[in-house]
Amino acid sequence: MAFLAFSASAFAGRVVTDTIPSRILGFDVPCNVYLPDGFEESSKEYPVVYLLHGLSDTYKCWVETGRMDMIADRLISNGEIVPMVIITPNAGHNDPRKVLNGYFNTPGRRYEDFFFQELMPIMESRYRCIGDKAHRAIMGLSMGGGGSTVYCQHHPELFSSCYAMSPWLDEKGGEVGGDSEGDFLAVVCNSVRENSALDFVDRADESTVAALRTVRWTFDIGDDDWLLPLSVNMHYKMNARGIKNELRVRDGRHDWYYWPMVLHYALRWASVGFAQ
Amino acid sequence: MAFLAFSASAFAGRVVTDTIPSRILGFDVPCNVYLPDGFEESSKEYPVVYLLHGLSDTYKCWVETGRMDMIADRLISNGEIVPMVIITPNAGHNDPRKVLNGYFNTPGRRYEDFFFQELMPIMESRYRCIGDKAHRAIMGLSMGGGGSTVYCQHHPELFSSCYAMSPWLDEKGGEVGGDSEGDFLAVVCNSVRENSALDFVDRADESTVAALRTVRWTFDIGDDDWLLPLSVNMHYKMNARGIKNELRVRDGRHDWYYWPMVLHYALRWASVGFAQ
Amino acid sequence: MAFLAFSASAFAGRVVTDTIPSRILGFDVPCNVYLPDGFEESSKEYPVVYLLHGLSDTYKCWVETGRMDMIADRLISNGEIVPMVIITPNAGHNDPRKVLNGYFNTPGRRYEDFFFQELMPIMESRYRCIGDKAHRAIMGLSMGGGGSTVYCQHHPELFSSCYAMSPWLDEKGGEVGGDSEGDFLAVVCNSVRENSALDFVDRADESTVAALRTVRWTFDIGDDDWLLPLSVNMHYKMNARGIKNELRVRDGRHDWYYWPMVLHYALRWASVGFAQ
Amino acid sequence: MAFLAFSASAFAGRVVTDTIPSRILGFDVPCNVYLPDGFEESSKEYPVVYLLHGLSDTYKCWVETGRMDMIADRLISNGEIVPMVIITPNAGHNDPRKVLNGYFNTPGRRYEDFFFQELMPIMESRYRCIGDKAHRAIMGLSMGGGGSTVYCQHHPELFSSCYAMSPWLDEKGGEVGGDSEGDFLAVVCNSVRENSALDFVDRADESTVAALRTVRWTFDIGDDDWLLPLSVNMHYKMNARGIKNELRVRDGRHDWYYWPMVLHYALRWASVGFAQ
Repeated sequence: MAFLAFSASAFAGRVVTDTIPSRILGFDVPCNVYLPDGFEESSKEYPVVYLLHGLSDTYKCWVETGRMDMIADRLISNGEIVPMVIITPNAGHNDPRKVLNGYFNTPGRRYEDFFFQELMPIMESRYRCIGDKAHRAIMGLSMGGGGSTVYCQHHPELFSSCYAMSPWLDEKGGEVGGDSEGDFLAVVCNSVRENSALDFVDRADESTVAALRTVRWTFDIGDDDWLLPLSVNMHYKMNARGIKNELRVRDGRHDWYYWPMVLHYALRWASVGFAQ
Repeated sequence: MAFLAFSASAFAGRVVTDTIPSRILGFDVPCNVYLPDGFEESSKEYPVVYLLHGLSDTYKCWVETGRMDMIADRLISNGEIVPMVIITPNAGHNDPRKVLNGYFNTPGRRYEDFFFQELMPIMESRYRCIGDKAHRAIMGLSMGGGGSTVYCQHHPELFSSCYAMSPWLDEKGGEVGGDSEGDFLAVVCNSVRENSALDFVDRADESTVAALRTVRWTFDIGDDDWLLPLSVNMHYKMNARGIKNELRVRDGRHDWYYWPMVLHYALRWASVGFAQ
Repeated sequence: MAFLAFSASAFAGRVVTDTIPSRILGFDVPCNVYLPDGFEESSKEYPVVYLLHGLSDTYKCWVETGRMDMIADRLISNGEIVPMVIITPNAGHNDPRKVLNGYFNTPGRRYEDFFFQELMPIMESRYRCIGDKAHRAIMGLSMGGGGSTVYCQHHPELFSSCYAMSPWLDEKGGEVGGDSEGDFLAVVCNSVRENSALDFVDRADESTVAALRTVRWTFDIGDDDWLLPLSVNMHYKMNARGIKNELRVRDGRHDWYYWPMVLHYALRWASVGFAQ
Repeated sequence: MAFLAFSASAFAGRVVTDTIPSRILGFDVPCNVYLPDGFEESSKEYPVVYLLHGLSDTYKCWVETGRMDMIADRLISNGEIVPMVIITPNAGHNDPRKVLNGYFNTPGRRYEDFFFQELMPIMESRYRCIGDKAHRAIMGLSMGGGGSTVYCQHHPELFSSCYAMSPWLDEKGGEVGGDSEGDFLAVVCNSVRENSALDFVDRADESTVAALRTVRWTFDIGDDDWLLPLSVNMHYKMNARGIKNELRVRDGRHDWYYWPMVLHYALRWASVGFAQ
């Protein structure tokens, strides 16, 4: 029947759930990978976007809640973005009782090392990514927006674009607290404080600033998001150091209304960066 | 913890699942009703939007898949639409094995009669709707877009705005076929043909045309939707009769990527109509 | 010939240039008035928007540079806003050598008194405005965005909506300086400092805060506008006092790229306010 | 003074008015060329967009009325498009009394030959364009939208993207008539009929169709534009031949409200094409 048949063919890309065995972490890390229409039939190499999730969420959310595959399909199909691979790794713990997570190195869990030394080389080889700075972008929401920003601060030579959505850029101002998760939340908050993206800009020497200028930066956050001051301050601080960056404040809160909407802008903008 | 606590308070409106006992149909019809923030605390009356679902779907889809509550919350909260009640009735059958449905009268199932004689008066009384033409709009997707259009053709004195999304306006051109659902699909197709919105415009006499001019009309459909010619033809036919109407063709297909996006436009536009 | 004939009929509304004789100021104040399609033929009363220009500009700019008539025509025609009267008064000086201007009372030039005691009653009577709070909005750019904000602070009982575009809300942070215009610029800057919209929020007592909550507020500014911190601070301060307000930061600077774009949002949003 | 100084630095790109001496036409053809920020300081080569004007207009309109320089500046500055050269040639006549014009070869005026044999090679060499299909796009309004389409039909090997705004694709349905310009209008209409873009698709053989599939096509037109049926028919015809193309119908007429708005979409979309 036409109505049903039509829907079945609506999505041309494909999401693969994969696993990255990690010696550094000591456990396997699950990951969703979006492969654009025509990936299997071609032998060409693709640009890659790393798309990071938020605190107490998993690698599944960008597909299941955010429908990033549907959005990417649509934007590729109508020519608003170039075909690209999108990788959403899990930032979680091996122990399923520990629901909280994080993108930084913490005692006994060197996630950032895993990301750069294992995840990136393994996945970019496995999924035919071009693999240079010009064709690699990173973006994420909340803790993943902070993670994207800090990863680009630590490795500006690796990414052309960073799009931080509702980012958690520093423990100060974020007012994250509570004790329901006990020690691990304290560990995450501590790691965010130690990896403060705001402080990094303040402290950067001139050669670091020069390197940061080679990345395209956007901070995008809702006007009703309690993390707003962090993004605004980041915009001021980067401007003060002469690091060009975009700030967007749209209507919204810290929720899944905002992120799929903003993903459209983020993918379009990253795609233009791949051409420069 | 702030991150979780925040999400819990994010949605201010409320969706109530209600049931309308129908003598005309002979069975109870389920329905979702969106009540805006503050509804319970106030005694004021509200404008109402009827939001119709498509073929082989149910009253649940606009909330579960389309997140109309989240969208309405956001638009009311930021002042883009006025607070309003939104009603999504089921167009289905009592027999759960008959998944197909329809908005028109068919032998043994007088749904259109039910809609105007039972659903509307019962629900508008129960949920404190203003209940005049100026403060009543109707919209829907696919078969529900066709239903919205035909209902406004039959009762232009009852609605200020009609927003048809990817509408099925006539059996011709829609190329709906197949036999998996057997007889009932034939019944639906037949009812759409008999209630052709396109033919109605062609056949309307001058007093009918004058009445149709008192409704605000929009037809909104994706450029990759196989029903596109129906909306384009409707635009031409209504223009030819001097019935002002808006046509929008955006990127998209006949799917749930299109409808939540378009619901933003539809609610904003209906809201402006409530002020006129 | 069709191509040319078509353009001639494209704009249905009409801009009238009028003059308001002012006893308070001691000179005549010119003004553009947008009258929607059908104004002359009807006897109905309309909502009104006051649309204010910026420093060293005149009442002409919103039509000549900003094409507000074309924008209003389009939005009324397609049903995105209700028909409304739009008034753009001159904030200038009688002496054409004094190019700078201002919306506040200054020695020998009581412009704010003129606005409320002469301009508003005269124009709303002359152009058939409904004339109540619910159907009156104010908006403006730069100095006119600041003027709109302060007028609504002084008279929250008169306006349903305030939409401040790239607003100059306080002399601090605006870094307006220079001496090319000599004393008059100092007078303007001084009047902005004395009428600081930011300080007003800090100092408001509870009954004033309650009154401010009856106005719908939006602050909309470009991320490359040097006045950005003023709008951000206003958002924080109003939030701190529980005065709901919208903040939007789009791509842009302090220029005529930004303002016509934002006028679309401002008129739509004010129009929804007229229905509440 | 800050307010004025700020505006002065607002536009980073530069518009050069140049002249192309034409042996084929026998007269000089004026042309505006947008050079992006940094053009003079660099030695790199750029992608190029040809941006065509409409009937009875000139090469000046896209800058003077459409502010394409301001739009391109903004989109390049915020990273929504890559830096590019934009060329707006005059389609006029040497005799200033003959205000009408055209993009096709007519007796004694071989404009299309001039475009491909003289304009393109001269300008792309003079303004450091990359000069391959991947980095060349064409777009235009009305007669220039038709011209863009037909040029891509005749030379699909030269353009990666074609974005036709409110295009005049065939004399039929366009209802262009009148005699105020006398013979020359008849000549233009005749040339549009002879170069019908619609007929071209119908008549294309398989190898031509294969070539047309290598161009990215968008047709974008207002719902109140009397040329709407031409774009809709073009979409149907190209779909029928399996030539992927985008159709957009927004609110609007055949005027300068529509074209600057649509230029944003057109430049973004062409820019993505340069990356593929």
